[in-house]
Amino acid sequence: MKSRITKLFGIEYPIIAGGMVWCSGWKLASAVSNAGGLGLIGAGSMTAEVLREHIQQCREATVVDGEQKPFGVNVPLMKPNSAELMQVIAEEKVPVVFTSAGSPKKWTAWLHERGIKVAHVVASSTFARKCEEAGVDAVVAEGFEAGGHNGKEETTTMCLIPAARKATSLPLIAAGGIASGEAMLAAMVLGAEGVQIGTLFALTQESGAHEAFKRRCLDLNEGDTKLLLRKLSPTRLVKGGFYDAIEEAENRGASPEELLDIIGIGKTKVGIFDGDVENGELEIGQVASLLKGNDIEPVAIVMQRLVLEYEQALASLT
Amino acid sequence: MKSRITKLFGIEYPIIAGGMVWCSGWKLASAVSNAGGLGLIGAGSMTAEVLREHIQQCREATVVDGEQKPFGVNVPLMKPNSAELMQVIAEEKVPVVFTSAGSPKKWTAWLHERGIKVAHVVASSTFARKCEEAGVDAVVAEGFEAGGHNGKEETTTMCLIPAARKATSLPLIAAGGIASGEAMLAAMVLGAEGVQIGTLFALTQESGAHEAFKRRCLDLNEGDTKLLLRKLSPTRLVKGGFYDAIEEAENRGASPEELLDIIGIGKTKVGIFDGDVENGELEIGQVASLLKGNDIEPVAIVMQRLVLEYEQALASLT
Repeated sequence: MKSRITKLFGIEYPIIAGGMVWCSGWKLASAVSNAGGLGLIGAGSMTAEVLREHIQQCREATVVDGEQKPFGVNVPLMKPNSAELMQVIAEEKVPVVFTSAGSPKKWTAWLHERGIKVAHVVASSTFARKCEEAGVDAVVAEGFEAGGHNGKEETTTMCLIPAARKATSLPLIAAGGIASGEAMLAAMVLGAEGVQIGTLFALTQESGAHEAFKRRCLDLNEGDTKLLLRKLSPTRLVKGGFYDAIEEAENRGASPEELLDIIGIGKTKVGIFDGDVENGELEIGQVASLLKGNDIEPVAIVMQRLVLEYEQALASLT
Repeated sequence: MKSRITKLFGIEYPIIAGGMVWCSGWKLASAVSNAGGLGLIGAGSMTAEVLREHIQQCREATVVDGEQKPFGVNVPLMKPNSAELMQVIAEEKVPVVFTSAGSPKKWTAWLHERGIKVAHVVASSTFARKCEEAGVDAVVAEGFEAGGHNGKEETTTMCLIPAARKATSLPLIAAGGIASGEAMLAAMVLGAEGVQIGTLFALTQESGAHEAFKRRCLDLNEGDTKLLLRKLSPTRLVKGGFYDAIEEAENRGASPEELLDIIGIGKTKVGIFDGDVENGELEIGQVASLLKGNDIEPVAIVMQRLVLEYEQALASLT
């Protein structure tokens, strides 16, 4: 499993836990880092001061046998407070930043000057090329399967990873639809050198999401998440009251303004953090249906199983 | 590459060429069978008598060194003439039938009584289970990436193959997003025992499609095919005049009736067979963008490359 990704981040396994709103606090990030992956704090749902607290707690929690494990922060660049978040990250000397939802040129040089490694999340090979121009250290190519905000091209992981591999020579991390060691290996076969996993970690014990959200997501069937909101910013949502309202509006040709009204403000908090699965906005990857019936497990168990499955899948080919 | 799929169909490589409207005549089917895969004649665009002619030509063209190679016919069961097509298939003693777009229970026993092997195409694990109940010999699980008619669940190949693998013990063929040996191997890692490939073969010299269609499809960028027509039957279309008219109508909330009016009759013939890429309905898989700039090549070359890529990808893991 050693690759340019394990070397770049100084981790044992090329497994990154995506920085997910309301899920990826210091508990989840530190658990993944302590289990040999790279945990990311998801700053998308945080103020600068909340982020500082999570960074400090994460740093404390990732000292194992006197040694500091690496961890990172994910910053969605469309967030109005992204400059403040970056300031905190620099002050707190976070070793790794994953940027997303914006231009990789915006912060890469600034972060590099402060000794911080940078990965950027893309949904197309065009943006993968822009990452290389911007000098980022690694690219995350995230397919249509992924939960939450998604690319306009709707390119699936199966088609996106080979495209990104062709477009750039940078270390490549696959995301979207990966929740098993077999899928990890499949992503590697397609050209990735590491994986970013969201859904599987969002539904662990250490995830900051409400238990009702986790239970709902562990009970989904195929087709129970869909990409909606193409007129604004394509987003994969879980079926429920919030979803129904948006789908109904879209089916009758609602304008972007009307859709914004329906979305309202703070609905991911209502759904994911407060656990109101009927009225809140629920975001999870399509791969959740493959986890149907699973327990809410600790990260350590999930990581062990991923690694074992990967090794078994590899051994079965040889 | 030997698997239950190669054994079931008596073929060298577990590679099936999908039966695609206007593309999969006897020339394409026989070329794939002669190159060691299983070629399918696509009856979706044929009358019973046209199908009979293609079967007879295919049979003649697949005698190699005095030995008859296997080939098959794909029958979309929603076709009004499917009973007539089945009658011709039985009279002509075609060894293999792939059914799609309907219930696997409808024809399986009838075909088995006549010594014909049956595979059925599904887009969900629910239908994969129904295939097992119906007694089909193999299941094709086709992901969201695939061209043309598609599942309502929008499950991608990455998520669908493991789900189908879990749902059934039948020999499993992966479809959607597969146009390279690496993607073939990835599909195998996810649980498939063979692959059905459409796009790559639709754009070969032997495909019955018009050259203008092939050239258009070999010039697509990521995002240039999209799944539309969710209110009728979800269909992956290529951008162009026909696509624009449907997208515009959908964005303003057009009813199913209005969409049917826009679709009209015979538009896939206009686009794919006649080569009017602006006014016709163009169907191709999302993976086409990975083939951008390729030549229109003979099937023999395409098959050789697939096998070589697969072997190299496998060797690189071991």
